[in-house]
Amino acid sequence: MKLELPAKTILLPSPVLIIGTYNIDGTPNIMNAAWGGIACSKPPCISVSLREATLTYHNIIQTEAFTVNIPSEKYFKETDYVGIVSGRDCDKFKDTNLTPEKSKLVNAPIVKEFPYALECHLIKKINLGLHTMFIGEILGMVADSEVLNPDKLPDIEKVRPMMFGSFGSMAYYNIGFKLGEAFSVGKELQKK
Amino acid sequence: MKLELPAKTILLPSPVLIIGTYNIDGTPNIMNAAWGGIACSKPPCISVSLREATLTYHNIIQTEAFTVNIPSEKYFKETDYVGIVSGRDCDKFKDTNLTPEKSKLVNAPIVKEFPYALECHLIKKINLGLHTMFIGEILGMVADSEVLNPDKLPDIEKVRPMMFGSFGSMAYYNIGFKLGEAFSVGKELQKK
Repeated sequence: MKLELPAKTILLPSPVLIIGTYNIDGTPNIMNAAWGGIACSKPPCISVSLREATLTYHNIIQTEAFTVNIPSEKYFKETDYVGIVSGRDCDKFKDTNLTPEKSKLVNAPIVKEFPYALECHLIKKINLGLHTMFIGEILGMVADSEVLNPDKLPDIEKVRPMMFGSFGSMAYYNIGFKLGEAFSVGKELQKK
Repeated sequence: MKLELPAKTILLPSPVLIIGTYNIDGTPNIMNAAWGGIACSKPPCISVSLREATLTYHNIIQTEAFTVNIPSEKYFKETDYVGIVSGRDCDKFKDTNLTPEKSKLVNAPIVKEFPYALECHLIKKINLGLHTMFIGEILGMVADSEVLNPDKLPDIEKVRPMMFGSFGSMAYYNIGFKLGEAFSVGKELQKK
């Protein structure tokens, strides 16, 4: 039975984006964000939506830069931690034993232990209400050689990313198995 | 070893968004989009980025409405099909045996067989380059009672959504197992 329900921001799955920025004093910070996604192919852009209450919001405005780091599933505790506490109260890199490395392309830190990161330059800031959407042009990508496929692109089966179950299931999940090839399995229906 | 690589729009995982719209003649259409995500909590908003070449792009401008339907994993072939063909050349609902149902809140169709859908009213259109980002305010949600948790929210373990492995692994994947509770498992690190 179909039920009509109140509006909820439940997208399944939601990504787990670890946003890297520098604080005004130059120390590195990371936070966990689930509101975001790829925004454009050319130029390559990604969006992340943040509340003004976060330190990261102000850092991005200050530096016009951020990284989007994709954690592998084994870092689910560290990932959750950097979404619970504020960089105003603690050093999240220190507390999680994660290592910041400066991006060579933008003024933002990369998480060394995570399999790959997108290096972004802020190009737009759109105030939508409680959240402001930051659109970053992706200038480059830093990845562990071990997670790349032969075309030097991050392979989901090697990255082993996690995802967020959103409000209906407040938990992190890993990926399961391959259902079928994209731009391929649907062709069966085309032949009808 | 960390490698510096060219910019790529690889977000892992990327969602599988089936965008429902009405064509100018009133017939329903659906397409598969991976570029999008939640944009704001209050008002509840979701973004989806589309190329001007798509029929859906023009439909959304015309109707100022769209639905975001989340397919369950068993529909991976239908999902792929509606991303391969254009609604200009065929009736995607007919070809996939999926059923359109008119949303009661917005002028856009819902896919009856999919576990839930977000009903969106267009509030912003942002041209970024090859893609234009459409931001929709989520006015309501339609869901199968069977996929809801006791709070009447879609439960990821019942929805069984799929995800897209992006360019590094051009395939659809399902979800695996729960790694840990959000806003909870990270507290272990807080006690240090």
